Amino acid sequence: MRGEVGNSPAVLLLSGGLDSATTAAIALSEGFRLHALSVDYGQRHRFELDAARRVAESLGIAEHRVLRIDLGAIGGSALTADIAVPRDRPTEEISSGIPITYVPARNTVMLSLALGYAEVIGAADFFIGVNAVDYSGYPDCRPEFIAAFERVANLATKAGVEGTLRFQIHTPLIQLTKAEIIRRGTELGVDYALTHSCYAPNDEGVACGRCDACQLRLKGFAEAGLVDPVQYQ
Amino acid sequence: MRGEVGNSPAVLLLSGGLDSATTAAIALSEGFRLHALSVDYGQRHRFELDAARRVAESLGIAEHRVLRIDLGAIGGSALTADIAVPRDRPTEEISSGIPITYVPARNTVMLSLALGYAEVIGAADFFIGVNAVDYSGYPDCRPEFIAAFERVANLATKAGVEGTLRFQIHTPLIQLTKAEIIRRGTELGVDYALTHSCYAPNDEGVACGRCDACQLRLKGFAEAGLVDPVQYQ
Repeated sequence: MRGEVGNSPAVLLLSGGLDSATTAAIALSEGFRLHALSVDYGQRHRFELDAARRVAESLGIAEHRVLRIDLGAIGGSALTADIAVPRDRPTEEISSGIPITYVPARNTVMLSLALGYAEVIGAADFFIGVNAVDYSGYPDCRPEFIAAFERVANLATKAGVEGTLRFQIHTPLIQLTKAEIIRRGTELGVDYALTHSCYAPNDEGVACGRCDACQLRLKGFAEAGLVDPVQYQ
Repeated sequence: MRGEVGNSPAVLLLSGGLDSATTAAIALSEGFRLHALSVDYGQRHRFELDAARRVAESLGIAEHRVLRIDLGAIGGSALTADIAVPRDRPTEEISSGIPITYVPARNTVMLSLALGYAEVIGAADFFIGVNAVDYSGYPDCRPEFIAAFERVANLATKAGVEGTLRFQIHTPLIQLTKAEIIRRGTELGVDYALTHSCYAPNDEGVACGRCDACQLRLKGFAEAGLVDPVQYQ
């Protein structure tokens, strides 16, 4: 089990999508012992969490916790509230502007939870698969946001203040295109058939192929010269 | 109803304790329309949330939401895990060092959730009753932490990035002693009988009078020359 032979512990935010699976493989290749955290934030479908469990198991991640939080109580996104997920948008449009699938403060909440978990297990490092290239629409995927949060992490915690941990947020995908991410993960042996990206799957969890997430994923595989092993409707 | 006549909306983190009740009264006195958020983070007792509901009702707060999150899945604190709450500590000891009742990343998580809520309802302001004087042990109650989080808020969000909202975190209690907080709240008509501070109440919710929170509260009332209306065991 690769995940159990690493040296330093690190917390990984694992959604079950293509990006977080690739991030996991990169962190493991760097020798970290991974403690994966999946956040069940009231997604409209649970296939993402099932994918997270499959990915954690297949990569031999040391520990995987699922934390439930009812972001739906706040609403405001097509992913947590009753708002339609857009389909068949041109890819130029997907990559510009902030989409309706934006979940308010999502990465801030995720990183906060990762921070609490990291402090409890004594991990100074955490990994998040944010990407500023193909999805520039999400403000909380940009390097300046990550840097600001890192500062918060070191001011907010007992471990940071006492100097026992110096928190560092690793974002290995932040400047990669989707095609580059897929190539890197493929080199590292990620089984993308286990991942789930679709925002609007059918009742069996089969991807729609038409939402923003499916379109970016398919475009990435095409540009990487590879075939997406996931089934589409 | 005072809470409904204010102008700008503001999000208030409402725990049901003495500090957040006072913060609510101050925000209302400044003319904000309050949207209170209570976070059920797996506290070992629910009396705090009941107190939050009573306080929200008595002050006429416009909206009160309770969001559940299972921080117990992460553990690490006497308030969420199976660790004994300290009792009868000398007050000098309470005010120095970081106590076992510290919840990892708690205020970071709370402010993240407040941020998501604020963005959804279009509120630029939020209020949190942190206090750096009597409880200097908590790193996430210090002004430098609040300033760093404010920066995150404005970088993390669609509203912040697009410039439609300029987030500001108000901490009216941050430099007050407990006695000053109690005097201010009393002037504003806060009914402290409705609040709950104890970390280790009995099964009926009656405060122990011996944990750090009870001791600081009792000392504050004594120094303010007032009687705490809450019942003790």
